[in-house]
Amino acid sequence: MRVVLVSTRNPLNIGAAARAMANFGFAHLCVVNPYDLAFREARSAVGAAPLLQTAEEYATLADAVAGCRLVVGTTSVGHRELQHPIRRLEYGARLILRATPAAPAALVFGSEKFGLSNEDLSHCHWLMRIPTTGQDLSMNLGQAVALCLYELSREPNTAAAKPEKVRSATAGETEQITLRLLEALAKSGYVNPVTALSTDEKVRRLVRRLEISPRDVPVILGMLRQILWKLDQ
Amino acid sequence: MRVVLVSTRNPLNIGAAARAMANFGFAHLCVVNPYDLAFREARSAVGAAPLLQTAEEYATLADAVAGCRLVVGTTSVGHRELQHPIRRLEYGARLILRATPAAPAALVFGSEKFGLSNEDLSHCHWLMRIPTTGQDLSMNLGQAVALCLYELSREPNTAAAKPEKVRSATAGETEQITLRLLEALAKSGYVNPVTALSTDEKVRRLVRRLEISPRDVPVILGMLRQILWKLDQ
Repeated sequence: MRVVLVSTRNPLNIGAAARAMANFGFAHLCVVNPYDLAFREARSAVGAAPLLQTAEEYATLADAVAGCRLVVGTTSVGHRELQHPIRRLEYGARLILRATPAAPAALVFGSEKFGLSNEDLSHCHWLMRIPTTGQDLSMNLGQAVALCLYELSREPNTAAAKPEKVRSATAGETEQITLRLLEALAKSGYVNPVTALSTDEKVRRLVRRLEISPRDVPVILGMLRQILWKLDQ
Repeated sequence: MRVVLVSTRNPLNIGAAARAMANFGFAHLCVVNPYDLAFREARSAVGAAPLLQTAEEYATLADAVAGCRLVVGTTSVGHRELQHPIRRLEYGARLILRATPAAPAALVFGSEKFGLSNEDLSHCHWLMRIPTTGQDLSMNLGQAVALCLYELSREPNTAAAKPEKVRSATAGETEQITLRLLEALAKSGYVNPVTALSTDEKVRRLVRRLEISPRDVPVILGMLRQILWKLDQ
């Protein structure tokens, strides 16, 4: 289980996230595109959690979650127009626990100001919502991380109850399929250049909704490869 | 239900506590003997929660909780010698909820460095412990407040709620997709005529494993139609 912080601006928040991870026994921190200075400051802060030292830095969210079979975004604000299944923290945490450790999972947190972008969201299988009551007030990042990890470590016994039966493809495999499909769609003229970016996001989300199983990955890639070959003729 | 911060040193923590209160619908903040400067800074911070403006300041914990019938202290560290009943957060929160609103209650948080003093503790009926796993690492104050208020506003039944049923496409829609996909594969030369029949079956099963949702059906059909059109050129 890895915690992924995307475009975090405030070193105190990186530090707070790391501290909450240490509090609840999580060790794998990834930062995506942090403000360089923020990350360095957080690392060098007095009393910085040792896991900050081993935190991994990535240029893109896709890279950070490539090895994961389940990618869950987080949000505390409800009014955004979202095309993802949204699950309340209590229930979502149970789903994650059921999937891990068979399926390595990532829990993704957006930046303090803007949360997760649409592009970020398109890499997520679903979203977990922290059930705040104040509608328009987002949560402090460090507190959001603490709440999610608390909930994930809340009832360890019920968590171990039922293993998930269906293993999903890794995020890296799913992204490969997405890219080949986008290539085929571009070559077929399906993609309007003007709206290409939003098409990318829609296709990426669609492919993730399919929850493709690992054994179907090579078959689907084979199909797409053949179609691409033919389209090139 | 009031939140009482005793001898808080860092204005950011007072601000974080206030924000968490706003997130979870708590309005009554009391500060006991704060560093004057910290309290003033927290109050004047940009974006300070309105409830900071109405926060009450007391010289002693006794004054702050005078009107309460239940006073609960908080701790995240377990090794202190304590003469109070200690209850885990999940269970303690339920006890508090059962007591309020008939009995106005106070939730008391100590200073960042030292937690609650023995004198402070003597005002508490019992203690609530946040179940961290790292034994020697105390929690960040703002995160501790957030966790307690989250647990207090948590609905115990939602975690056990049934997963929402995901509606799948009809068999007819799924078959339409299957047929178009098979057509595209045939036109690309993916299908070996000798093994065509078994390929049909494999593709049909694969498409069903994807459990395509009704709203994705027209999108996928549109993609396949476009690819077929291009393959025919």
